[in-house]
Amino acid sequence: MNILPGTPFDCAVDGDKLKEECGIFGVTGVHDASNFVALGLHALQHRGQEAGGIVCHDPIQGFNSARRFGYVRDNFTRADVMKGLPGPIAIGHVRYSTAGSKGATAIRDVQPFFGEFSMGGCAVAHNGNLTNAAALRRELIERGSIFQSSSDSECIIHLMARSIQTTLAERLKDALRRVEGAFSVIAMTRTKLIGVRDPMGVRPLVLGRIGEGWALSSETCGLDIIGAEFVREIEPGEMVIIENGHLKSHRPFAPAPSRFCIFEHVYFSRPDSSYGGRSVYEVRRNIGIELAKEAPVEADLVCPVPDSGTPAAIGFSQQSGIPFALGITRNQYVGRTFIEPTEQIRNMGVRLKLNVNRSLIKGKRVVLVDDSVVRGTTSRKIKDMILDAGAAEVHFRIASPPTAWPCFYGVDTPERSKLLAATMSEDEMRDWIGVDSLRFISLDGLYRAAGEADGRNPEAPRYCDACFSGDYPIAPADKLKEGFEMKEPAE
Amino acid sequence: MNILPGTPFDCAVDGDKLKEECGIFGVTGVHDASNFVALGLHALQHRGQEAGGIVCHDPIQGFNSARRFGYVRDNFTRADVMKGLPGPIAIGHVRYSTAGSKGATAIRDVQPFFGEFSMGGCAVAHNGNLTNAAALRRELIERGSIFQSSSDSECIIHLMARSIQTTLAERLKDALRRVEGAFSVIAMTRTKLIGVRDPMGVRPLVLGRIGEGWALSSETCGLDIIGAEFVREIEPGEMVIIENGHLKSHRPFAPAPSRFCIFEHVYFSRPDSSYGGRSVYEVRRNIGIELAKEAPVEADLVCPVPDSGTPAAIGFSQQSGIPFALGITRNQYVGRTFIEPTEQIRNMGVRLKLNVNRSLIKGKRVVLVDDSVVRGTTSRKIKDMILDAGAAEVHFRIASPPTAWPCFYGVDTPERSKLLAATMSEDEMRDWIGVDSLRFISLDGLYRAAGEADGRNPEAPRYCDACFSGDYPIAPADKLKEGFEMKEPAE
Amino acid sequence: MNILPGTPFDCAVDGDKLKEECGIFGVTGVHDASNFVALGLHALQHRGQEAGGIVCHDPIQGFNSARRFGYVRDNFTRADVMKGLPGPIAIGHVRYSTAGSKGATAIRDVQPFFGEFSMGGCAVAHNGNLTNAAALRRELIERGSIFQSSSDSECIIHLMARSIQTTLAERLKDALRRVEGAFSVIAMTRTKLIGVRDPMGVRPLVLGRIGEGWALSSETCGLDIIGAEFVREIEPGEMVIIENGHLKSHRPFAPAPSRFCIFEHVYFSRPDSSYGGRSVYEVRRNIGIELAKEAPVEADLVCPVPDSGTPAAIGFSQQSGIPFALGITRNQYVGRTFIEPTEQIRNMGVRLKLNVNRSLIKGKRVVLVDDSVVRGTTSRKIKDMILDAGAAEVHFRIASPPTAWPCFYGVDTPERSKLLAATMSEDEMRDWIGVDSLRFISLDGLYRAAGEADGRNPEAPRYCDACFSGDYPIAPADKLKEGFEMKEPAE
Amino acid sequence: MNILPGTPFDCAVDGDKLKEECGIFGVTGVHDASNFVALGLHALQHRGQEAGGIVCHDPIQGFNSARRFGYVRDNFTRADVMKGLPGPIAIGHVRYSTAGSKGATAIRDVQPFFGEFSMGGCAVAHNGNLTNAAALRRELIERGSIFQSSSDSECIIHLMARSIQTTLAERLKDALRRVEGAFSVIAMTRTKLIGVRDPMGVRPLVLGRIGEGWALSSETCGLDIIGAEFVREIEPGEMVIIENGHLKSHRPFAPAPSRFCIFEHVYFSRPDSSYGGRSVYEVRRNIGIELAKEAPVEADLVCPVPDSGTPAAIGFSQQSGIPFALGITRNQYVGRTFIEPTEQIRNMGVRLKLNVNRSLIKGKRVVLVDDSVVRGTTSRKIKDMILDAGAAEVHFRIASPPTAWPCFYGVDTPERSKLLAATMSEDEMRDWIGVDSLRFISLDGLYRAAGEADGRNPEAPRYCDACFSGDYPIAPADKLKEGFEMKEPAE
Repeated sequence: MNILPGTPFDCAVDGDKLKEECGIFGVTGVHDASNFVALGLHALQHRGQEAGGIVCHDPIQGFNSARRFGYVRDNFTRADVMKGLPGPIAIGHVRYSTAGSKGATAIRDVQPFFGEFSMGGCAVAHNGNLTNAAALRRELIERGSIFQSSSDSECIIHLMARSIQTTLAERLKDALRRVEGAFSVIAMTRTKLIGVRDPMGVRPLVLGRIGEGWALSSETCGLDIIGAEFVREIEPGEMVIIENGHLKSHRPFAPAPSRFCIFEHVYFSRPDSSYGGRSVYEVRRNIGIELAKEAPVEADLVCPVPDSGTPAAIGFSQQSGIPFALGITRNQYVGRTFIEPTEQIRNMGVRLKLNVNRSLIKGKRVVLVDDSVVRGTTSRKIKDMILDAGAAEVHFRIASPPTAWPCFYGVDTPERSKLLAATMSEDEMRDWIGVDSLRFISLDGLYRAAGEADGRNPEAPRYCDACFSGDYPIAPADKLKEGFEMKEPAE
Repeated sequence: MNILPGTPFDCAVDGDKLKEECGIFGVTGVHDASNFVALGLHALQHRGQEAGGIVCHDPIQGFNSARRFGYVRDNFTRADVMKGLPGPIAIGHVRYSTAGSKGATAIRDVQPFFGEFSMGGCAVAHNGNLTNAAALRRELIERGSIFQSSSDSECIIHLMARSIQTTLAERLKDALRRVEGAFSVIAMTRTKLIGVRDPMGVRPLVLGRIGEGWALSSETCGLDIIGAEFVREIEPGEMVIIENGHLKSHRPFAPAPSRFCIFEHVYFSRPDSSYGGRSVYEVRRNIGIELAKEAPVEADLVCPVPDSGTPAAIGFSQQSGIPFALGITRNQYVGRTFIEPTEQIRNMGVRLKLNVNRSLIKGKRVVLVDDSVVRGTTSRKIKDMILDAGAAEVHFRIASPPTAWPCFYGVDTPERSKLLAATMSEDEMRDWIGVDSLRFISLDGLYRAAGEADGRNPEAPRYCDACFSGDYPIAPADKLKEGFEMKEPAE
Repeated sequence: MNILPGTPFDCAVDGDKLKEECGIFGVTGVHDASNFVALGLHALQHRGQEAGGIVCHDPIQGFNSARRFGYVRDNFTRADVMKGLPGPIAIGHVRYSTAGSKGATAIRDVQPFFGEFSMGGCAVAHNGNLTNAAALRRELIERGSIFQSSSDSECIIHLMARSIQTTLAERLKDALRRVEGAFSVIAMTRTKLIGVRDPMGVRPLVLGRIGEGWALSSETCGLDIIGAEFVREIEPGEMVIIENGHLKSHRPFAPAPSRFCIFEHVYFSRPDSSYGGRSVYEVRRNIGIELAKEAPVEADLVCPVPDSGTPAAIGFSQQSGIPFALGITRNQYVGRTFIEPTEQIRNMGVRLKLNVNRSLIKGKRVVLVDDSVVRGTTSRKIKDMILDAGAAEVHFRIASPPTAWPCFYGVDTPERSKLLAATMSEDEMRDWIGVDSLRFISLDGLYRAAGEADGRNPEAPRYCDACFSGDYPIAPADKLKEGFEMKEPAE
Repeated sequence: MNILPGTPFDCAVDGDKLKEECGIFGVTGVHDASNFVALGLHALQHRGQEAGGIVCHDPIQGFNSARRFGYVRDNFTRADVMKGLPGPIAIGHVRYSTAGSKGATAIRDVQPFFGEFSMGGCAVAHNGNLTNAAALRRELIERGSIFQSSSDSECIIHLMARSIQTTLAERLKDALRRVEGAFSVIAMTRTKLIGVRDPMGVRPLVLGRIGEGWALSSETCGLDIIGAEFVREIEPGEMVIIENGHLKSHRPFAPAPSRFCIFEHVYFSRPDSSYGGRSVYEVRRNIGIELAKEAPVEADLVCPVPDSGTPAAIGFSQQSGIPFALGITRNQYVGRTFIEPTEQIRNMGVRLKLNVNRSLIKGKRVVLVDDSVVRGTTSRKIKDMILDAGAAEVHFRIASPPTAWPCFYGVDTPERSKLLAATMSEDEMRDWIGVDSLRFISLDGLYRAAGEADGRNPEAPRYCDACFSGDYPIAPADKLKEGFEMKEPAE
């Protein structure tokens, strides 16, 4: 049979696609909580565009839910959808659009997941990735569980169903003690809103107050949009249970060193979100400053690759004194792929999205600042466009170290062999892309930009930087069983 | 909480709606089996119009499925749907449109259900109703099962998951020995097509051959459309397992008297389907003949209430000598409800569907033949229309006995208090409807029409006629627990 | 250029498709007139299934309109559509689904057409076909008119725009005096509802009263559904103008002999509609009686080809004494075409729609009664199905004379060479279809059934029967120019 | 009647909505020209988001067209749409989404318009606004033209239909000589691609070469996306006719001074488009530089109001030395309006779209640079957000002079009384918005930024700046008739 045991039959999901980045949001103690969740998910839309779901509870109408493909704005703004989601407590989830077609995901894969237990219903929204999900799934199926989705997150519900604890919160603790990996979870019962981060705190989760109510969000920008006041981050390994307006903090897991995902700073989070009192925008600008120190160059213009390279480009310009300019314009209406008219047009894909300001660029030495290089194919096309427009020189500066290792903690990355930096040195990459110079920020520089004045402490790094370093803080159990080879410890 | 333990949260399904009539179809040993299943389901569309589903298996592409709301013809004719359903074995299901809105059913309620077990996948399509499903569901949830649909049929999959048998067929036997009620089931594994009828054979299931392959269908009309040859009916209590082109018959249940649903003859089955070598059309025509003997009347025209009263009206006309005429025309484009323009129009609902041929009816004494009277409200409206058109007399003749009891075996009936015949005598009904005469066929007459020359044997009736007699061959366990009162045995 | 001058550019409509049958309806003097029009069009849906449109006028909100592809029930039942159609006067149109794909018709071809004139707006709905439309169109374009649709009916609006009359009603008279062909027209201005039939009255149009208001409808069944009382038919060559609750009758055309389309009786009108005080059902039953007299046969069963052959089959049975039976069942869910599974299945198309009642037919001599034979291909397939089911003999009886000539007056017929009866004698057709006998009713028999006791008067036939006789009462000017050859007068 | 003579009936379009900004594109001499047009329109999508249309011609398949609501990327990327648009010549149009609902526009209002004339078909796409359209429309209707859309641009087609010229190009000249106002037009016949600008060249139109073919586009970014080489701008008052690969230039109008719309520089055109060899981005950056000179301020950060204020903010920062920062983040997923959860949330609308980077802004003196102030309501909300985030001071700098007059030449502006600058002085506006300072660039400063070293020459201004100055280069004839009052000449 061509599908793994436990993989649902109408999803042709390959291994990669199960690792997705997501956004989660929950609120309690407000009227029409689902409307707040819709707003929060809208603010978190950059974390997942494929689909979204909301579960809510009302004392009269019980649990209700809606799951939809597409943007939050197109679904959870409709009166017919929202009037079916009443009550003072609600949680929601947005899901990343993986490389495959929408058809590859069944609507039943869209979170939050819901389970009906003898003591009542419970909904769970998960951001992250479980590294022992395949093994757990096999075990659960052996013992009689029927999986309905292809999502590893469904394990949590089935583990709860097997727990002998008598409250849902205790059952959730039981379940999460069995899973390994990176997770931020928002759960709800009829009366409780629950937030949890894994022991290392790989994925973010923040807490806010809105009037007498409370909100949980992947990022602070979700609090801003609903007018909630930021209280604090949920701590690594912490579970907060909010009931009747009161919050209690629990510590269900063994202590572990904190390892927040540094890629949230580099690319994933919105620039107006903050962690540790520092906005992501500022970290990115700092990266640009560090980069200008580490890899200076003589040039006429600093141009960001829109839009994610902009803050680092501003920092690079400010440090280097080279004028900042919007040399590449992004078409905000990019969507489906056009039918290529003829072979007359090269680089169609990138032209649909980006255009070079020819009269600005012509004859100039240009520094292009981008956030990262994954496969490198887009970098080549951008270089072509810039040269076509008559640039005299092109210098790439990358606001992250070389991405040489896949992420197993909730970010969708190609397998290792597809990562340009896994197979080439920096000079080889420069030649392959075809630019005058190419420099990545160092790992230490990145840590400095993120506030670690001394750079990365190899004994106890403050962040998870496995995608750059190959240093995986949580063993990827399922992947090792499939044959993934970790970096040699001596390396 | 306002939903029962185990009821999924986004379905507001009341108790009634769980009892639905359905159609099931399966085929193996042919190329592109799903196309045959689509055709078979199209022929069975009268058994369920709300939604349909197909699961199939292909040696290369494994299990695939599609579930859609709406008619078979609108979904399972599309190349984009069907190309995703490859392979030589497939089963399907059509589901009845219950009174509520489509929104009341989640797509996850649409069968066939599928479970991934350690020994492989299995899909199950169920026609009928399980009378102990609520109790089973509670027990399964206690033991850690997570239900994903509101359908009682899902119990079968979870019971299979709990079985200690090592083959799927044996697990299915285990599961079906635990359920009570009426069921015909078509199931499939990677290589086996399985058909089962409950011990009393309440719901139909027939077997056909197509080339070297085999087909299972609720009715013979499903075999006709694919050009399959009718072989025989699956017997009550029989399980057939077809693998590698060979059929084996099993008897997993204790023997029980056969009690085929007599309402399949009266209304539910298509007139061109046959049971016991006799077409449903002929039984219905015989009912008309018996009715003309039991309840003769002087009149000018015999008119059917379209379309289901037509065969009995033909029989009534042939026996009585009163000319048969199409006095009421049915609009074949009936669909959504129109916005009522003003109160000027009475009886809008029925006018959208039916119109009286005024010049034909005017001044005539008319016998109207209908298949059944449930709430009686439609009968009143039809009587109004006939009188408005100038009929001199209106005589109703009903091709079934008074429907005085709800069905718990898979036909959607209102609760007992809503059934006109549960609260009124025949004369009271006549007066309430407002016609010159009203007569129902006797239970004995109905049995004679169905081939029992001596009428109904009260000691061992050949059919399930609980909706007419209150004689329930299978105790409705869940309903009794909810407070349903059976007929006094002495009555 | 591959499209004729004047043919709009996004319609690839060939000549045939311009000749379509339609249904028209109008009402004035009621609240929310559009709701009545929606109901009337629903009752007339059999006259056109491709698309529908409504134009209405409200003193405050002015003219409004909606045009939609698909059934009336799916579009003009929606609150969002209907609330945009306010006011006490409205007219509507349903359009026939011609052989081509829906894409072949632009929404701008959907009537009623609307023109804004210096004295106000006017909407026009047309049933029929103009035989000099191509010539008129060329002339109008020469003079500066811009056509926006592919419909010949648009000529009427442009002719009105060119008229020097000062009222819209007079301009409509001017326009209709310029056109040739068959037409029933319903038009409206802000205050007037207007109904017109062409001088020969080829297409139907009836008048009804609803409270203090008035209604116009293609058929009486449209009056029935809204509860309107039938008043009379609009007479050939008559124009009625209804304003402020009063009706005035005009005679804008030179007198001409009445030639109502006899095919309305044979097939097109609904059986519960009436013309001349006689229901279409009764005429069809009479045809069956005449047919049994003209072409008797020894047989066991008379079966209609559903559904249109049913009334004639009833008449045939009653006259011949051979029992009437529903030997062929029609699947009411027919829609899109299924993907043919394999070549194992012959006659797929007809099986999707029709199934033979095998146990009823087996070993019987069967008379099949159908309404007409056009290309003959369907007749062959039905014969195959009946023989496959084991019939001993098959005798076809056709409720119309051989269809040997195309219609140019609003019925969509294939070109002459495609009509079976244009190329074969009755015996040749019998052999080609492959039945034991085949007989058509005579033209005289048809006239007798329609109430002409002496049959057809060749000097002054009461009906248009050009499709049977080749006797075209109105010269098809455009077609003659294209090379169509009329029957030799001597023939 | 509530609609003006000549206004089509299913559009409730008020006067304002007829003035819309659009984008036009055409190409000839390439395979599958429509695919190029789709790309060009995609690049011009910022000029009109409501709907788009393409007309093309193929020697075999003749004229074809498609019109769709929504983005180019969602419609003209679909194979089923594009395969219906074959041939080597095509033109297209995108239409601005006016304030009303989509329902307010009928699909028949979507350009290009098409007319079938005796010498063949002609399609016309128009960007701009005709100031005498209402008068022309009335005259044409009097003479027998039937208007099918609410668009004034349709006049062009009807004027062509009335012309006595024998070629389509000459008829187009005739028609355009009759219209007044601002227009750039792209037209096509079977073989000719035609581009025209009005005598003053108010709206842009540029010419490019692609291989052996030619392209016409509203802006140069439309040439870039298809890989065409920019040749030159079409000159004010010029008509170019391209046929068989050759271009001929005509001068059909009386000479007039050039008055290009200066608002194209300020806001409307894409920053990567160029006019007169200078990119729009550079003009906008220059505006920021001029603004920093004219209205300096002590502050900590210069932040753009995203996205259109960005280039001017960069210029302001570079001139002033105050650091540039992205203090406001724009949510790129803005779409439908959310249901407001409760009154707890103020400024919901702007929060859906914009969020302040709190940790960046807190305690800072902020200069906000925006492109323009129309009603001023958004400016107030942005000020609230910035202050809520803890800014110490807020200074608005506006990259255009006060918008005090409506545009009648193709830009959708509110009526004069709704324009903040029409009723308040700069100081009053500052107080009403509630900021520490508010300064607009001067008209002279704007001219300097656009390359006029000496500022605006009041005797012969190089641009149309009516929205700022009230100096209307073309008399708005229809508006004057409706009562619009021009600025006093002495003022």
